[in-house]
Amino acid sequence: MSINASAHPRDLTGRPRVKGAWTARVITLFPETFPGVLGHSLTGRALEEGLWALETVALRPFGDGRHKNVDDTPAGGGAGMVLRADVVGAALEQAADGTPADPARWPVVYLSPRGKPFDQSMAARFSRSEGMTLLCGRFEGVDERALEEYAVEEVSLGDFVLTGGEIAAQALIDATVRLIPRVLGNQASTEEESFSDGLLEHPQYTRPAVWKGRTIPDILLSGHHANIATWRRDMAERLTQKRRPDLWRAYRAKHGRDPDGDQEL
Amino acid sequence: MSINASAHPRDLTGRPRVKGAWTARVITLFPETFPGVLGHSLTGRALEEGLWALETVALRPFGDGRHKNVDDTPAGGGAGMVLRADVVGAALEQAADGTPADPARWPVVYLSPRGKPFDQSMAARFSRSEGMTLLCGRFEGVDERALEEYAVEEVSLGDFVLTGGEIAAQALIDATVRLIPRVLGNQASTEEESFSDGLLEHPQYTRPAVWKGRTIPDILLSGHHANIATWRRDMAERLTQKRRPDLWRAYRAKHGRDPDGDQEL
Repeated sequence: MSINASAHPRDLTGRPRVKGAWTARVITLFPETFPGVLGHSLTGRALEEGLWALETVALRPFGDGRHKNVDDTPAGGGAGMVLRADVVGAALEQAADGTPADPARWPVVYLSPRGKPFDQSMAARFSRSEGMTLLCGRFEGVDERALEEYAVEEVSLGDFVLTGGEIAAQALIDATVRLIPRVLGNQASTEEESFSDGLLEHPQYTRPAVWKGRTIPDILLSGHHANIATWRRDMAERLTQKRRPDLWRAYRAKHGRDPDGDQEL
Repeated sequence: MSINASAHPRDLTGRPRVKGAWTARVITLFPETFPGVLGHSLTGRALEEGLWALETVALRPFGDGRHKNVDDTPAGGGAGMVLRADVVGAALEQAADGTPADPARWPVVYLSPRGKPFDQSMAARFSRSEGMTLLCGRFEGVDERALEEYAVEEVSLGDFVLTGGEIAAQALIDATVRLIPRVLGNQASTEEESFSDGLLEHPQYTRPAVWKGRTIPDILLSGHHANIATWRRDMAERLTQKRRPDLWRAYRAKHGRDPDGDQEL
């Protein structure tokens, strides 16, 4: 299998990257879909400033034969096409070039609905690595042998099916990059938000004080910081209990309260 | 508050849309991030063909004053900024123009980590509607009163925090659009895949038969369709049991088996 120059990672970072900047290396049939949304707003500005880096590895050049075929029909029959192990393997080897072999330092992830559900703690783990490789699938998936051979970690965005892994990769990168120091700047806090303590976030209000006859809860205008903090915690707990019994049980267990004692509040 | 012409929905559909085509109307501060990934591959081709339609409603023109401010500091203090109820409300009213008031026919969704987790059954429900409005947040969220006033449905992509709702909206739209008839064509099946029966998908293999000493399981090459189907079901069950005890319990309960009898396989 011949590998031409265009198979090499393409750097989409704007200016020279900051030394040691966290790097996402994305293997995809659609490199033109990157940076996509990630090129705008806070993640885009941070990319421009080299606070993180984005590289794409086009899958197509690793394809087989004159037509650069990357997929074939499933062994055993069935609908759709499966990405070939040799094609994906070659791309993974190219993407591994110059990266640490230790998966804690450089995770290699395949976006797949069969994977471990992506969550905020996983984003925090990825943000502490030096960078990561993300394999975007298409069609009916990837030949299982490629995932086994390279010990690829399967990560799922959720219990739904996408036409490809590109949007899932962008979501994972966005959630990870915003945890990297200096990316958010003073625009927002990552400490007070949803999931930082296993709870959904309390309701938010801002000016105007009255809108369509609806007012801001008095306590938020009281200036009494301790009472406001208590109210917000209480609202976050109520919301979590009502909307997400699964998170609520985990939260209660974590705080040494009876996980099934839902009637307390 | 004055509303200028650019606040009107902008149609990103390629050719004239098919009569009654499912329509996503997206309220966003970054309309230039659409169609993004959705403009490529299968969803992009279907958009070009008018099998579905995509419209953006820019949030900025609804902003207040000379600087078109859309946000303000949270009542009660805290980091970040909150999108104003009056600004979001005006955009929601503009987006509602010409759409059915019945939320079953036209859901109005705010992408938020506080929402109900998006899943395949929700995608199926959305795909049966005439279209939907998606509100993309930024910063610390949206003034709660806007969500209450318009009975907005909160939907979460998962238990993680994104810098904005745009990627989440693209994921939701992608998962929904691919369930619309003719969008996938013959490229793939939506019947045999993950979650269609509450199970993760079985492993897939394709040519070459041997790669790096790794072979395709014999049974898949046997040509015995019933045995292949049994093997795939068995593998899907094992994988689900191992990786997703939550789905496994639900699957067993649905099939009248003891949800806690995990040792059977």
